[in-house]
Amino acid sequence: MAIEGKDEQAREPKIRLGMVGGGAGAFIGAVHRMAARLDDQFDLVAGALSSTPEKAMASGRDLGLDPERCYGSFQEMAEKESARPDGIEAVSIVTPNHVHFAAAKAFLEKGIHVICDKPLTSNLEDAKALKEVADKAKALFILTHNYTGYPMVRQAREMVENGDLGTLRLVQVEYPQDWLTEAVEQTGAKQAVWRTDPAQSGAGGSTGDIGTHAYNLACFITGLTLDSLAADLDSFVEGRRLDDNAHVMLRFAAKGSEKPAKGMLWCSQVAPGHENGLKIRVYGTKGGIEWVQADPNYLWFTPFGESKRLITRNGAGAGAAAGRVSRIPSGHPEGYLEAFATIYTEAAHAINARKKGVSLDKAVIYPTVDDGVKGVAFVEACVASSKKNGAWVKL
Amino acid sequence: MAIEGKDEQAREPKIRLGMVGGGAGAFIGAVHRMAARLDDQFDLVAGALSSTPEKAMASGRDLGLDPERCYGSFQEMAEKESARPDGIEAVSIVTPNHVHFAAAKAFLEKGIHVICDKPLTSNLEDAKALKEVADKAKALFILTHNYTGYPMVRQAREMVENGDLGTLRLVQVEYPQDWLTEAVEQTGAKQAVWRTDPAQSGAGGSTGDIGTHAYNLACFITGLTLDSLAADLDSFVEGRRLDDNAHVMLRFAAKGSEKPAKGMLWCSQVAPGHENGLKIRVYGTKGGIEWVQADPNYLWFTPFGESKRLITRNGAGAGAAAGRVSRIPSGHPEGYLEAFATIYTEAAHAINARKKGVSLDKAVIYPTVDDGVKGVAFVEACVASSKKNGAWVKL
Amino acid sequence: MAIEGKDEQAREPKIRLGMVGGGAGAFIGAVHRMAARLDDQFDLVAGALSSTPEKAMASGRDLGLDPERCYGSFQEMAEKESARPDGIEAVSIVTPNHVHFAAAKAFLEKGIHVICDKPLTSNLEDAKALKEVADKAKALFILTHNYTGYPMVRQAREMVENGDLGTLRLVQVEYPQDWLTEAVEQTGAKQAVWRTDPAQSGAGGSTGDIGTHAYNLACFITGLTLDSLAADLDSFVEGRRLDDNAHVMLRFAAKGSEKPAKGMLWCSQVAPGHENGLKIRVYGTKGGIEWVQADPNYLWFTPFGESKRLITRNGAGAGAAAGRVSRIPSGHPEGYLEAFATIYTEAAHAINARKKGVSLDKAVIYPTVDDGVKGVAFVEACVASSKKNGAWVKL
Amino acid sequence: MAIEGKDEQAREPKIRLGMVGGGAGAFIGAVHRMAARLDDQFDLVAGALSSTPEKAMASGRDLGLDPERCYGSFQEMAEKESARPDGIEAVSIVTPNHVHFAAAKAFLEKGIHVICDKPLTSNLEDAKALKEVADKAKALFILTHNYTGYPMVRQAREMVENGDLGTLRLVQVEYPQDWLTEAVEQTGAKQAVWRTDPAQSGAGGSTGDIGTHAYNLACFITGLTLDSLAADLDSFVEGRRLDDNAHVMLRFAAKGSEKPAKGMLWCSQVAPGHENGLKIRVYGTKGGIEWVQADPNYLWFTPFGESKRLITRNGAGAGAAAGRVSRIPSGHPEGYLEAFATIYTEAAHAINARKKGVSLDKAVIYPTVDDGVKGVAFVEACVASSKKNGAWVKL
Repeated sequence: MAIEGKDEQAREPKIRLGMVGGGAGAFIGAVHRMAARLDDQFDLVAGALSSTPEKAMASGRDLGLDPERCYGSFQEMAEKESARPDGIEAVSIVTPNHVHFAAAKAFLEKGIHVICDKPLTSNLEDAKALKEVADKAKALFILTHNYTGYPMVRQAREMVENGDLGTLRLVQVEYPQDWLTEAVEQTGAKQAVWRTDPAQSGAGGSTGDIGTHAYNLACFITGLTLDSLAADLDSFVEGRRLDDNAHVMLRFAAKGSEKPAKGMLWCSQVAPGHENGLKIRVYGTKGGIEWVQADPNYLWFTPFGESKRLITRNGAGAGAAAGRVSRIPSGHPEGYLEAFATIYTEAAHAINARKKGVSLDKAVIYPTVDDGVKGVAFVEACVASSKKNGAWVKL
Repeated sequence: MAIEGKDEQAREPKIRLGMVGGGAGAFIGAVHRMAARLDDQFDLVAGALSSTPEKAMASGRDLGLDPERCYGSFQEMAEKESARPDGIEAVSIVTPNHVHFAAAKAFLEKGIHVICDKPLTSNLEDAKALKEVADKAKALFILTHNYTGYPMVRQAREMVENGDLGTLRLVQVEYPQDWLTEAVEQTGAKQAVWRTDPAQSGAGGSTGDIGTHAYNLACFITGLTLDSLAADLDSFVEGRRLDDNAHVMLRFAAKGSEKPAKGMLWCSQVAPGHENGLKIRVYGTKGGIEWVQADPNYLWFTPFGESKRLITRNGAGAGAAAGRVSRIPSGHPEGYLEAFATIYTEAAHAINARKKGVSLDKAVIYPTVDDGVKGVAFVEACVASSKKNGAWVKL
Repeated sequence: MAIEGKDEQAREPKIRLGMVGGGAGAFIGAVHRMAARLDDQFDLVAGALSSTPEKAMASGRDLGLDPERCYGSFQEMAEKESARPDGIEAVSIVTPNHVHFAAAKAFLEKGIHVICDKPLTSNLEDAKALKEVADKAKALFILTHNYTGYPMVRQAREMVENGDLGTLRLVQVEYPQDWLTEAVEQTGAKQAVWRTDPAQSGAGGSTGDIGTHAYNLACFITGLTLDSLAADLDSFVEGRRLDDNAHVMLRFAAKGSEKPAKGMLWCSQVAPGHENGLKIRVYGTKGGIEWVQADPNYLWFTPFGESKRLITRNGAGAGAAAGRVSRIPSGHPEGYLEAFATIYTEAAHAINARKKGVSLDKAVIYPTVDDGVKGVAFVEACVASSKKNGAWVKL
Repeated sequence: MAIEGKDEQAREPKIRLGMVGGGAGAFIGAVHRMAARLDDQFDLVAGALSSTPEKAMASGRDLGLDPERCYGSFQEMAEKESARPDGIEAVSIVTPNHVHFAAAKAFLEKGIHVICDKPLTSNLEDAKALKEVADKAKALFILTHNYTGYPMVRQAREMVENGDLGTLRLVQVEYPQDWLTEAVEQTGAKQAVWRTDPAQSGAGGSTGDIGTHAYNLACFITGLTLDSLAADLDSFVEGRRLDDNAHVMLRFAAKGSEKPAKGMLWCSQVAPGHENGLKIRVYGTKGGIEWVQADPNYLWFTPFGESKRLITRNGAGAGAAAGRVSRIPSGHPEGYLEAFATIYTEAAHAINARKKGVSLDKAVIYPTVDDGVKGVAFVEACVASSKKNGAWVKL
C-alpha cells in the first residue's frame, strides 16, 4: 500500500502551450486544458480555438488568453507565434480529424512540438505524409491515445513484458457506447454531427472514433503487431453515413516459432447500457488479465491455476510502471483526466529532455506518429475488409 | 419481492427413468440425477451406466438400483425395459457425443421418451437421421441445453418477446473456460480425453462442447435465426486435435424489412481466469440486456436513455416466465442444478401431458431435436468456415 | 480447478423422514423437502403438515404421502410412527418458532432424530429445556442454520482455523432485508403475520428471524464466543410489535492473552434494496475475508500487504472443507438449496454413523442444540440490552 | 447521457493562494495543489511549507515559488503577505491537526480566506474558539471535507432533499482502511507518526482521521443532525496511543413527529483488504441508496418495490446537483482529485462572490467551520462514550 502520496518533482520551467480547436462546446478541448494543467508542466498562452474568428476570440477571452494571441486560424498562429521570442513551444491540436494533418504540419515545420488528438488524420495518405513531416521535424509529435496513460494499463503492459502471462494467445478488446443509438446527428448534436460526417471524420465512424482506441490499447498492452483483420461493419441507424458498429477478428503476427495470437475487437455506438465501455482481456499460456476503463484503478489478474487477484493502482501487487504515473494513494480513485494528464506530463518530459539535449528516461512512454499511422491503417483495413464481405486484409 | 416460496404442485405419479452413461467418474451423470430428483418428478430405476459391464453394475449398485435392472449395454436396456410392465418411461442419455445417436434411436423406437445431453450427435448426418427418428416416434425427445432453464434467461427471452429491447441489432455471446490451457488430455484427465477426441466428440472441440451452448442460448433468448457465420478456429495447445478456441462473427436472418442483427461468439477453453464464463448481451433499438451464468440470479437491463436496472430472480421487475421456474424467494440464489432441474421438470410436464393426452401448457419450454440439429450444424459450419479461411458459411 | 464432478457416494439405505409443518403456503417446508431430496439420503414418508387437519391431509396428498401417514398433529405422528416397524427415523420440524419445543421434545423422547428449523425456540426457557431433553435423548438434534452449509462458509471457517487471518480482531456481520418496509403483516401476508407476532416468534423480530442467522454465521466462521453485546432495537413500522431493525455492538471473549475481538451486527427488515443481504467480514492481524450470501460461490481474501484474491467454490485456492460439500465444478454456481441440502446430508452422515454405532467423520459439521440455545440467548440479550438503553449485556 | 463535455466558465481573475504545510513528503499538500490547479481558479504564489525553514525554502523552490515568498512560519507569511499589494487572498492549511487553529486564526484575522484541511482542530476548545474567530472575520473559512465534492454524493443529497427516499430511517456508514494493521508508526512512517500522536492529532485516531469524514458525509447527504452516540473504541495494535478502530451506534434527532433515524458508523485502520473503503447507505420509507468512494461515479438506488438502478455521474437519471460539478461525460470516470478540486472551485465561487459583493449562488456548497466544530465534537463524543463503556453521549 502506498500510504504516502507523491510530491511534485523539482520542476522545469513551464512549457508555453497553444491550442488549435477546443473553443466553446468542444468537449475534448476542455479535457486537454485540464490535462495540461493538472501536473503544472504547461502554460496555455495562445489559441486558434475555432475556425470562426469571433468564436475563437470569445473563447480565448473566456480562457483568459491575451487577445493578441487569440488567432483566427492555425496558420496565423503558427506564423506569428514562431516569430515571437516568447512564442509557444508546443501546441495541442483538438479539432475534428480532417484538420489534424494541415495543422500539425504547420507547427512541426516551425519547430513547435505537437500534441495531437486521435485519430491521426482522416485518411491514410495524410497519415503517411504527416509521418514523413514528423520524422523530419526537429519538434516532437505526441498523439493523445489517452488510455495509455492509465496506471493499470501501464501495469498490464509491464506484466506482459515481464512474462507474467506467458506466451500470448488471445486478445479480446471492445469499446461499446450507446450515444448514437438514435439518429442524434440529424437533430444537430455537435459531437454527433462531425463524427458521422465522412468529410470531417474520414472513412471510419465508430472504427475511427473508438475502434482506434481499442486497437491502440491492445497493441500498447501486448506489444503485438497486427498481421491482418476480417471486419463486418454496419450502420444500423437509418441514414447514417459511417459505421456505428464493427465486428472484427484479429490475427497478430507470429513471434518466433510461437503460434500467433488471435483476437476479437468490437466497437459500437449503438449498444444501450454502455457509456464508454472500453475493456480489454489478454490471455496467455500462464495467465489472463482484464481491465475496464470505467473502473480504471483495478487490474484483474489470474495466474493459471491460482485464484484471481485484484491489483489496485499503487496498491499491493502493483509495479513500478503503474506507480510512476500514479499521483495519490491506492483506494482513492484516479480517473480519465489523470490518465490524460499523464500523456501531457510524458510529453513534457520528452520536450524538456529535447530542450536540454539529454536522452529521455526510458520509463517515459507516449504514443507517437507511428501509432497514429497504425490507427488510420486499421480504420482503412476495417472498411476495406467489410467491403470485401469480411475477407482478411493485411495491415 | 416474492416473500413467499412456492409449494410443490399437486403431483403426478413419478416417471420411471433409466440412464445411459453416467457411471463413476462421469461428472454430468451425477448432475442429471440431482436434476431429476430436485422437483421429485422422476424415479431412477434402471441404468446402463457404463460401456464396461462390471463398472455399469458397480455404479448401479452405488446408486441403489435393482441389480437386475443394471444393464451392460443400452441396447439390452431398451430391449428388456420396454418388455417390463413396470419398465422405464423415459431415459437420460449422458454418454460422450458419439453414442447419443444410436442410444436415442434405440429408446425412441421402443416408445421411451429420451432426455439427451448436448450436442445432439457427433456429426450432422447423425443429427438429421436422429431428427427423422424423433419426428416419427411416439415418444418425446428433450435436449438438455440446461442454460435455458435459468429463470433470468427465461426473463430475457420474455423481455425480447415483449419488445422491451425494440428491434434487435446486436448479440454478443461468449463462453470462455480455462481448464484446457495445458495439455491435460495427455495426462489422462477423463473429462479432457473424450472432449478432445474427434472420434468421441465430433468435428468440434470447444465449439461442440461449449460453443453450442452459447449459440443455443443466443437463439433461445433472441428468437433469431442464424443466417451465416465466419469463424476462425484454433488449437492453441500443441498436439490438440480439436479446436480449443473459436472466434465467430454472426449474421442473423432479417425479419421483415428490418436491418438484420449481427453478433459475435467467442468460445475458448484456454482463457485463464474463466471457469464457466458463459455471458450474453443483446442490444436493440430500445434497450440492452446482459446475463452471466456464474451470477445467474441477475439480469441487467438498460432501457435506452434511462438508468441501468438490476432485475433479480423472483424480485421486483421479474416477470411471469422467470417466476414460473423459480423455487425460492429472491435474494436466495438458485444455481446450475436448479436450472438443470427445470429442464427435467419441463420434460415431466411434457411427458405427463402426452400420457394424459392433453395439450401442453404453452408456458412449458424445453429444447428439442431441432435445437440439437441446429447445434451440430453450427459446429460443422464453424469448422467449414475456418477451413475456408473464415469465409461466410450459410447455416 | 475441479473439472470433474463428484459421484454420489456408495450409499446407505435412505432414512425414513417425517415432517411437522410445511403444508401449503409455507415457504420453508418446500425448501426442507428439496434439500432432503437433493442428495438422495432421505425418503419423506409421513407428515403432520398443518395444525388444521384437513389442510394437513390435503398437503400430504399433494406430496404423495400415504394418507394413513398424514397426521393431524405432531403428537399423533410421534405416537403412531414410533409404533410402526417402518416408522420414521427422523423428523423435520418447520413450524413457527413457538411450536419447535414441544414438537422436538415429542420426537426426541421417542428416539426419533430431529432436524429443526431455527431459531431453536421462542424463548430461552424453552431452549434450555429442549437442550436438556436433547442431551438426554438417544436421538440426534440438528438445527438448520443453513448458511453453514455453503461451501465458501466452510472455506472461511477452515481458513480461520488454519490461521490464515492471524489473530482475529474484527467481525462485521449484517443481514438486511426490505420485505417488511411496509406493514404487510396488517394485510395478512402469511410469512409476515407470524414473524411479527410475539406469541409465535418470541421476543425478537428481525433479531430472531435473521439476526440469529448472522450471529450463528459469525460464531461458525470465527470459532469465537460472544462475551457481551450492546443493542439498539427499533420497530420502525407503525404498529409493529417486534423489532424490525437492530444495531448491535459485539465483544467477543478473549482467547489467552490476546486482545479480544470486537464486532458489529446489523439486521434489518426495512432496508430497501436488500433481498437477503447476509454478509460477513472478518479481519485479523494477517488478513481479511468477505462473504456475501447472494453471491455464495465467492470468498474474497486479502492477505495483509498483498492483492485481494477471489477464491471460488471448488476453484483454485479452495480447500478440502469447501470441496467436501461441493457438488459441481467451479464456475457453475451452487445456491441456497444446495447449502440447505448439505445440512441434510451432514445430518444423514450423523444418523447413519449413529445407526451403525461408528464414530462420526470429523469433517462432518452440523449445527446443534447448543447453537440453538446460543441463538435464543442472543435474541434475549438484544432485547434486554435495548430495554436498558443499549447497556452491555453478558451472554 | 451527457455526450458533450463542459466548457470552462467565463472566468474571474485567478485567486492568489498561499499554503501552510505541504512540503516534501506530505501527501495532502500535493493533493491540495492539484485540486487548486484543476479548474484554474487559483494561483499558488506563497508558502510556509514546512516548520523547518530550510525545508520550507527547498520545497518552495521545487514548486517554483518566488523565494521571497517562501516563509519560515505561517505567522511571518500572514504578516508579510497581508502587507503586500499583491499578497495572497486565500491560504490553504494542510498541516497536522494541532496547527490548524493558530494558523487559521492568523490568516482570518488578516482578512485572508482560509481553506483548511480536516479535522478542524485537535480539540473541541480550539474548534469553538476558531468558530468564534471565523464568525467574526471578514474572510471566509472553507473546510476540505473533500468527499462532499463527489458528484454522486451531491446526487445522493439531492435525492434525499427531493424525498426520493421518503422518511429516513437508517444510515449505515463505514470507512475502513488497513494501512495501520501493523505498528508502522514505530518504524517512522511519516503519515503514521503524526496520525497516531495525540499531541498532533488530538484525542481521536481513526475517529479523527477518517471517522470525521464518515460522519460528515452522513450528515451532508441526509441533512440529519446527530443527537447522540454510543461508541466502542479500540487500539488493537500494541503500543498505539490512539484508537485504530471505532464501532459507533448513532441516534439522529427527530424531525417533527417522525420516528428518528438510527445508524451505525464503523471506522478502522486495521481492516486488511480495505484501502479507503468509505461507503454509505441510507434507507427510508420509499427507497435506499448506496455509494462507495472507491467507485465514485456510481450511485445505487432502489425505489422500494422496484428494481435496483445504477445512476452514473452525468448519465441518465443523474440530476442537476451532480451535473453541476461534473467535468466530463459519463462513462469516463472522475476521481478523488476532481472531487477535491470541486471544493476548491466552490471556494472560488464563494470568494469571488464576496469580492464582488454579490450574493452566492445557492447551488454552491462547501463545508464550513460549523461542520468542523461538529466533527471535533463527534471525535470527543466517541472518546467520552467509549470511556464510559459505550454509554450514550449527547452531541
